[in-house]
Amino acid sequence: MRTLISETIDNIGKQVTINGWVHLRRDHGKLIFLNIRDRSGFIQVVVNAKASEKAYETAKEIRSEFAVKILGIVKKRPENAIDKSSVAGSVELEAKEITVFSKSETLPFDMGGKDLNLELPTLLDNRGLTLRHTKISAIFKIQETVIDSFRIACKKKGFTEFQSPVIIPQGAEGGSELFEIKYFDHKAYLSQSPQFYKQIMVGVFERVFTVNKTLRAEPSVTTRHLTEVTTLDAEFGFIKSWLDVVDMAEYVIKFMIDAISKQNIDILRMYNKTSPKIPTYIPRIKLREAQEIIFKRTGRDNRKEPDLQPEDEREICRWSLEEKDSDLVFVTHYPVSKRPFYTFEDLQDRGYTLSFDLIGRGAEWMTGGQRINDYNKLVESAKKRGIDLKKSEIYLQAFRYGMPPEGGFSFGSERITMHVLGLQNIREASLFPRDMERVDERFSH
Amino acid sequence: MRTLISETIDNIGKQVTINGWVHLRRDHGKLIFLNIRDRSGFIQVVVNAKASEKAYETAKEIRSEFAVKILGIVKKRPENAIDKSSVAGSVELEAKEITVFSKSETLPFDMGGKDLNLELPTLLDNRGLTLRHTKISAIFKIQETVIDSFRIACKKKGFTEFQSPVIIPQGAEGGSELFEIKYFDHKAYLSQSPQFYKQIMVGVFERVFTVNKTLRAEPSVTTRHLTEVTTLDAEFGFIKSWLDVVDMAEYVIKFMIDAISKQNIDILRMYNKTSPKIPTYIPRIKLREAQEIIFKRTGRDNRKEPDLQPEDEREICRWSLEEKDSDLVFVTHYPVSKRPFYTFEDLQDRGYTLSFDLIGRGAEWMTGGQRINDYNKLVESAKKRGIDLKKSEIYLQAFRYGMPPEGGFSFGSERITMHVLGLQNIREASLFPRDMERVDERFSH
Repeated sequence: MRTLISETIDNIGKQVTINGWVHLRRDHGKLIFLNIRDRSGFIQVVVNAKASEKAYETAKEIRSEFAVKILGIVKKRPENAIDKSSVAGSVELEAKEITVFSKSETLPFDMGGKDLNLELPTLLDNRGLTLRHTKISAIFKIQETVIDSFRIACKKKGFTEFQSPVIIPQGAEGGSELFEIKYFDHKAYLSQSPQFYKQIMVGVFERVFTVNKTLRAEPSVTTRHLTEVTTLDAEFGFIKSWLDVVDMAEYVIKFMIDAISKQNIDILRMYNKTSPKIPTYIPRIKLREAQEIIFKRTGRDNRKEPDLQPEDEREICRWSLEEKDSDLVFVTHYPVSKRPFYTFEDLQDRGYTLSFDLIGRGAEWMTGGQRINDYNKLVESAKKRGIDLKKSEIYLQAFRYGMPPEGGFSFGSERITMHVLGLQNIREASLFPRDMERVDERFSH
Repeated sequence: MRTLISETIDNIGKQVTINGWVHLRRDHGKLIFLNIRDRSGFIQVVVNAKASEKAYETAKEIRSEFAVKILGIVKKRPENAIDKSSVAGSVELEAKEITVFSKSETLPFDMGGKDLNLELPTLLDNRGLTLRHTKISAIFKIQETVIDSFRIACKKKGFTEFQSPVIIPQGAEGGSELFEIKYFDHKAYLSQSPQFYKQIMVGVFERVFTVNKTLRAEPSVTTRHLTEVTTLDAEFGFIKSWLDVVDMAEYVIKFMIDAISKQNIDILRMYNKTSPKIPTYIPRIKLREAQEIIFKRTGRDNRKEPDLQPEDEREICRWSLEEKDSDLVFVTHYPVSKRPFYTFEDLQDRGYTLSFDLIGRGAEWMTGGQRINDYNKLVESAKKRGIDLKKSEIYLQAFRYGMPPEGGFSFGSERITMHVLGLQNIREASLFPRDMERVDERFSH
């Protein structure tokens, strides 16, 4: 019967068997200390030659990342030796028998420290190993919470989860940066967004959400772009106004941040981060107001620009934190020309859309808005932009046969993970990051 | 304030506003009946010219699939007029005001019946509309339960969810039926399975699961194959034997079927199906035993075959139901030659693997087994099959640096959905089915 490391503390004085990987081995003459890791945490194992000669002989051969089984007695550690940061830090295991399941080659670098100080290319070239480091794997515990809490938040509001396709006949927002596939004797493409499908599904379930891989042939190598990301999308009908969409987006992001604060406090601490500050109401300002604020604060005059530059995003977040005590800020009313063809124009503020971005800690987290639900207006708007909906007949059907006022939002799980933990490069927030230069391994030129 | 249709029954005698789509309109002189649908169910609305002339005038113009808002008074229906199959079948709404959010064109076919009797091509050509039919949308409520209950089952056993990539450098099981992508100046492929990645992740979280789109360039058009499916994968380490994998698979599928029985009883009833029969222990028989049983029952001698044919799958399910009172049966020990290179050979039964398929209601639902965890044996097995792992360096790392005994399983959400509801074609179990001939619309030749 296997005992998880986290369960050893309830078994003081008893004999248990643990399974796990050797994190570190330290030798002190006839005493060997093994730090063992399983999915529940770490424990110190003491191998004493006097207590078990055989276990000691085995332990001498053991190196980092060996997969092992250890039978031993759980002992309470003296008060001054307790490691409070560790789930089993109050006990140690006195080894009686050690079985090696699988050996490991000598590691190409030290994995024993609290940080894994490697350059990004080395980190990624060795992804099959480096992901095992606690500080790296913790990133993906955060990503799991991000995705799962998004689902729970949506379900609580009556949303249905659906599966959106990866293979598409053409892009939702025009043809740029689409990956092309050889599809038997035809061409097909990879989905950049479940936008069309989630709108179709509003007609079916009224409130829907979907978690998807979205693919973009991003031709530049930056710290903010990947070719493959996991996107969280929600869309819902029968809204009274676009403010219902902002409200729902606000509810969802608050729910998610709250989940991280509760479930991953130890990881936030490991990264020396606090969870993002969110007041009762997240500030909402128009793009033009944001530009005015930035101009007043910095003298930088981007008031004619149709969008925020990265330095503007950072500045408006500084303003939001200083003036509104909020790490997050909704910027609304982007110009019609800068938003996709299906975006609803503000009839009270012509030329600007009922759309928003959620900016957090200096970067965009989410984008959303109300959509055009009138069939004729939708077709006309696409036409004006030169967007061909010939291959989007089933999308058009959703509008031809009665679509209520609706809207939705979308965000990338990697972005939120990155900004919650303050990672420097989005590649760190993707298990197996893909970019122009790498799909698992770097392309040779 | 909007009231959901399901909430009207708690508002008898009160004035409420509902939002929804017009399912059917029936005229009886100065009385018009509207059957309205929202995400919570159906309600009958009575529009009486005497009660509201204006509402009546609006109702006259209304057709199926108009999106509307209706203000009215909730009335209890007489006992003999109660529709028990409907959530609001005990009440009706007497309309006072009707607002049209969005009109609908005349439908291309009748959507009002209990069944939508369309040929598959018509059903799919009009997917943006046909998905709205209750009997069609119900299929995807089942699929939602299948996927969600898989996640919950795994989480209860300490599994971590991770995101597996779609874009891959090469296939996990050799090169056949891979979709090729133009990846900037290089070639890349679409993932047929998260197999390599879930094995890597065993080294990280020990127990992992993942829900993924998997893509296969299936060159035949059958009732059982799609090019894109949503796959449910689990993998875990530190197993004592391959039986741990079968046990876990059994626990997960039981959990899922139980969830469907509890949450979707109304849908099973709509399809005139009962939930699959599962005894305390799902029967487990070796492939050779299955072939012997089939030979005895039918005289069909496939005892030398390395796999079950479709007719064999149906026969072994008949046997399982008749003899073991089980709609499901595990068939184990497929020959080494028929399983992927990473499959563990049974050292007590050479030439056969520690692998299994779960066959249910006449077709394969799931496949799984123990994997080779020894680095050298894995490399040797790949080599024997002519499988090139040159681009799978990070996969190999997971084994080079200590991998415990491990195994896992995989199944397709569409297959389970199809067989639970007894659908005739797997395309019916995919929202937007893709095959050789269709990506949303049929290719023109």
